[in-house]
Amino acid sequence: MDINQVNALTYEGFVHFFGNVVEKCPLVSAAVWSSRPFKDISDIEAHISDFINSLPDSGKEGILRCHPDLAGRDLQSGTLTRESTEEQGQAGMTTLDSAERLLMYRLNSEYKERFGFPFVICARLNSKAEIVRQLSQRLKNERAAELEHAIQEVTKICSLRLNSIVLPDIQTKL
Amino acid sequence: MDINQVNALTYEGFVHFFGNVVEKCPLVSAAVWSSRPFKDISDIEAHISDFINSLPDSGKEGILRCHPDLAGRDLQSGTLTRESTEEQGQAGMTTLDSAERLLMYRLNSEYKERFGFPFVICARLNSKAEIVRQLSQRLKNERAAELEHAIQEVTKICSLRLNSIVLPDIQTKL
Repeated sequence: MDINQVNALTYEGFVHFFGNVVEKCPLVSAAVWSSRPFKDISDIEAHISDFINSLPDSGKEGILRCHPDLAGRDLQSGTLTRESTEEQGQAGMTTLDSAERLLMYRLNSEYKERFGFPFVICARLNSKAEIVRQLSQRLKNERAAELEHAIQEVTKICSLRLNSIVLPDIQTKL
Repeated sequence: MDINQVNALTYEGFVHFFGNVVEKCPLVSAAVWSSRPFKDISDIEAHISDFINSLPDSGKEGILRCHPDLAGRDLQSGTLTRESTEEQGQAGMTTLDSAERLLMYRLNSEYKERFGFPFVICARLNSKAEIVRQLSQRLKNERAAELEHAIQEVTKICSLRLNSIVLPDIQTKL
């Protein structure tokens, strides 16, 4: 899909293709459809980022709370979204041994207990070891700083998802 | 579930039970979890309403765009959410004859073309005839007034969905 095709989409088509660029938050892409026409993919990304940043802290937390745990229950039970399945797979979360799974469970639980939202990181940009390192590190952050950090990760994930929708080989499948 | 049980839920439990009180917008209930403890169900409702009203117009439009058409494609193909299936059924949308279906299709299309979001009405509070009447009438509204009206319908739907979660006979099933 090129940007002209994106701009020609009805809101229904736009939500169909872009509804999960922010995990389980079709509201966000549905909202930015109001800002079309877009100059390019970066322009969509900027509108999404602006929208998220305009939300009160509770709204940002709400976005994070729509994300699954890394190597968590949804992965075990096969109920991750297609995008998350791919991303967690690429980061090695599907091939953890039992000690690694236990470590992730323990760290995720501690993180959720401390912040009231799940640990979110752009899995495609990080190895398994790096994810564990960052999770341990970010557990020590102050709440406000961690919220901002986590939202930055959401926008990185969003950017990669947006760019995967406009790949030429994906265009032919649509 | 009583309000103490609601207040004891983790964000994951809260999103599990309340994630669809605003259609396909788990972000909204996930956001209001930040405001717990709640005094009662009306208090949850008020926080949801405040959150929605704090959104820019694009965000309100985004919420509406996550809603299915009444008697539309999702109903035909069985891809409505559980809540919408019940609500559209109660309003007689599942038993339209072909002339009625065509009329709904035509009016829905005209409405979406005019406003850029779908016609949303609290189906449980309206008969089939009343829905057609209101759709025809609201088509003539100014855009800003219609956006407000549609959002009021979202909060009515939300209120009924919230109240259905706390029914005693549902509590025992959870």
